[in-house]
Amino acid sequence: MTTTARVAAAGAGPEHRLGTTTLQVTDAAGAPLADTEVVVEQTRHAFTFGNIGFDLVGLANGRGEAGDEELGERYVEVFNAATLPFYWRDFEPEPGRPRTDELRRAAEWFRDRGVAVKGHPLAWHTLAPQWLLGRPLDEVEQTLRERIRRDAGGFAGLIDTWDAINEVVIMPVFEAEENAITPLARERGRIHMIRLAFEEARAANPKATLLLNDFDLSSAYECLIEGVLEAGIRLDAIGLQTHMHQGFRGEEALVKIADRFARYGLPLHFTETSLVSGDLMPRHIVDLNDWQVDEWPSTPDGEARQADELERHYRALVGHPAVESITYWGITDRGAWLNAPIGLLRADGTPKPSFDALRDLVKDEWWLPPTTTRTDAAGRVAVRGFAGDYAVRPARSTDAAAATFTVARGADAEASVTL
Amino acid sequence: MTTTARVAAAGAGPEHRLGTTTLQVTDAAGAPLADTEVVVEQTRHAFTFGNIGFDLVGLANGRGEAGDEELGERYVEVFNAATLPFYWRDFEPEPGRPRTDELRRAAEWFRDRGVAVKGHPLAWHTLAPQWLLGRPLDEVEQTLRERIRRDAGGFAGLIDTWDAINEVVIMPVFEAEENAITPLARERGRIHMIRLAFEEARAANPKATLLLNDFDLSSAYECLIEGVLEAGIRLDAIGLQTHMHQGFRGEEALVKIADRFARYGLPLHFTETSLVSGDLMPRHIVDLNDWQVDEWPSTPDGEARQADELERHYRALVGHPAVESITYWGITDRGAWLNAPIGLLRADGTPKPSFDALRDLVKDEWWLPPTTTRTDAAGRVAVRGFAGDYAVRPARSTDAAAATFTVARGADAEASVTL
Repeated sequence: MTTTARVAAAGAGPEHRLGTTTLQVTDAAGAPLADTEVVVEQTRHAFTFGNIGFDLVGLANGRGEAGDEELGERYVEVFNAATLPFYWRDFEPEPGRPRTDELRRAAEWFRDRGVAVKGHPLAWHTLAPQWLLGRPLDEVEQTLRERIRRDAGGFAGLIDTWDAINEVVIMPVFEAEENAITPLARERGRIHMIRLAFEEARAANPKATLLLNDFDLSSAYECLIEGVLEAGIRLDAIGLQTHMHQGFRGEEALVKIADRFARYGLPLHFTETSLVSGDLMPRHIVDLNDWQVDEWPSTPDGEARQADELERHYRALVGHPAVESITYWGITDRGAWLNAPIGLLRADGTPKPSFDALRDLVKDEWWLPPTTTRTDAAGRVAVRGFAGDYAVRPARSTDAAAATFTVARGADAEASVTL
Repeated sequence: MTTTARVAAAGAGPEHRLGTTTLQVTDAAGAPLADTEVVVEQTRHAFTFGNIGFDLVGLANGRGEAGDEELGERYVEVFNAATLPFYWRDFEPEPGRPRTDELRRAAEWFRDRGVAVKGHPLAWHTLAPQWLLGRPLDEVEQTLRERIRRDAGGFAGLIDTWDAINEVVIMPVFEAEENAITPLARERGRIHMIRLAFEEARAANPKATLLLNDFDLSSAYECLIEGVLEAGIRLDAIGLQTHMHQGFRGEEALVKIADRFARYGLPLHFTETSLVSGDLMPRHIVDLNDWQVDEWPSTPDGEARQADELERHYRALVGHPAVESITYWGITDRGAWLNAPIGLLRADGTPKPSFDALRDLVKDEWWLPPTTTRTDAAGRVAVRGFAGDYAVRPARSTDAAAATFTVARGADAEASVTL
């Protein structure tokens, strides 16, 4: 028996992220392609490395500003998923006139570049439309249901991941701004709100991955999730925000969070990750929106710290088996939330060390670049790497059609490809 | 038409606590007892003014120490309910040998003096028996179920109010001491724990008032309650602890808490209230049990503050329509929890100003003492006062048998009594 030829990603990576697929390579006639050089490469991570796509909506709609093209190139260099803004107040400034076309073009821009799109969020008290204020609760609920159904259904096939509802822990007791959703949640309860959001989104797009998403990672969120599961509401993933304007949480705390929420047996999505490359926001600020500054510069020291912490953040969470997605919350400092230097690119478009650090992880250490290997006497080659999509083509010709295959987590699989 | 004679409690009290019962007084032959002097008095509050009965278990079991008789007299002077300790570790130090008889005698001691008894708690991670450690989860759950059924059932008719389960918000993530309940809660979920406690207690004593009780009054508890209600578990009251070793919460905060938890439409019981009459515990202590001091003296300044705050606490909560019970957590400083001077009596048995302040509220301002009045020409008299039990007897003889009647909150009722 021959020893199968092997090719493997450079970095070890967490063992539980890896898998092996042994290829049986044949020619068009079905004969094993023995002792033949082939080039194997990874084309996509199964793990979701996302970012916000807010900054590219203009470009996708023909309103690109200077630097947007380059921003888009940087984006797709690292990220395989984009979160697009469906904040109701902005999305539907006047009742019945949603910005559907604009968001559709943005989603298509990403899809055409191999980037999956997520919508954020379908239901939330913050940024609920002002025009809902003063309406009776039944009408508010009905209008909310219709909006969820319209948007989850209207984008089905293009956007198949949604934060179905956002920040429910605080929803009924939210006091920062009058809105029409908080009184509804207060009167009818948190689980009622979650049920309605999931019901409508599920009905409109049965294939969607629907998340509950929150910044409150205390026991309150655990209690809420337990109630939701007891109520028989199906969650596809648990969304955990980790904005860190006030400092990096650290590996131990992150793993502890993941452990606590992993016990529900659902995939964990770290949906909103941010780390500043400048001064930290003071610890006494509770609602991050309360910290409004005109200038919040990115500094060399801050950028070095951000790169270090970002790498540690990703290593810790990619290392946790329950985590399936990390979305960073900022591609560029230009127009960033709160003016905070949380981007991976500076306002002038140049990459910070954090961008390079993340690219090195995602597209180098955890990635199989085009690698030439030789099939064995039986025409076989074993490919070990991060779970994801892969391609194999004959080494003799760089423009030959590639065959594709996948590597699955923890799997020891076989696949046949014809070259 | 005659104007009905009226008698009313001295203090106004919160309007929603009051009711009026108009008595039709007749003689043994059934004739109206017109223009006759009668003495009306309140005999019991409908509102539960409770305290812990821990300190009187010894006396009730013939092991009274010096001062215990007087302590008992002070107790029944103010309180109409007593919470007795059913901490599993102490109650059943060896498997199968519970201290049932001792607790029964204690409960009977209170019952015989007109004091209702509550048991605390049937399920809790803290003070779970050490002998449960290391057993398989199924066995832990079964043993817990049996203990709940045994004690809730065994005391039925004598103890008809229970904290069915205590501090569930922290239960699955409790880390201060290894115990057999936390892993069960972690594995099977908070709602599972609550369901099993209520199921067993309800089955064993269908007439019992069963509480969920917690010190965590944050959104976490709201989320937990919402999940429990969605799961169809019937709670008879929501238990809210307010230990205030670190300072009085203040009326505004208390009313806000009551408002938040009132929206589930269930009675609110403030189950564990404490205020120190000495130095405050430092704010940085999170688990009160972490503050262990040898001496914690009661001081004149502290006693004045305690009396003031206690009065404000009771006024605020008796003033809230959803509150049906306040239990103070300390009758004497002798042997008090954490050595803290939270008692209403000093270690030497003398009353602090807080005792007098509470007695003045409960048995004076909010109370109708024996009051002589005259029935009208039709033999009628209207009695307005705090909801509760009342008695009426002829004024001509102090030892004549009294007739009893009730005054219900918000009611304008009629009753016939024969004197």
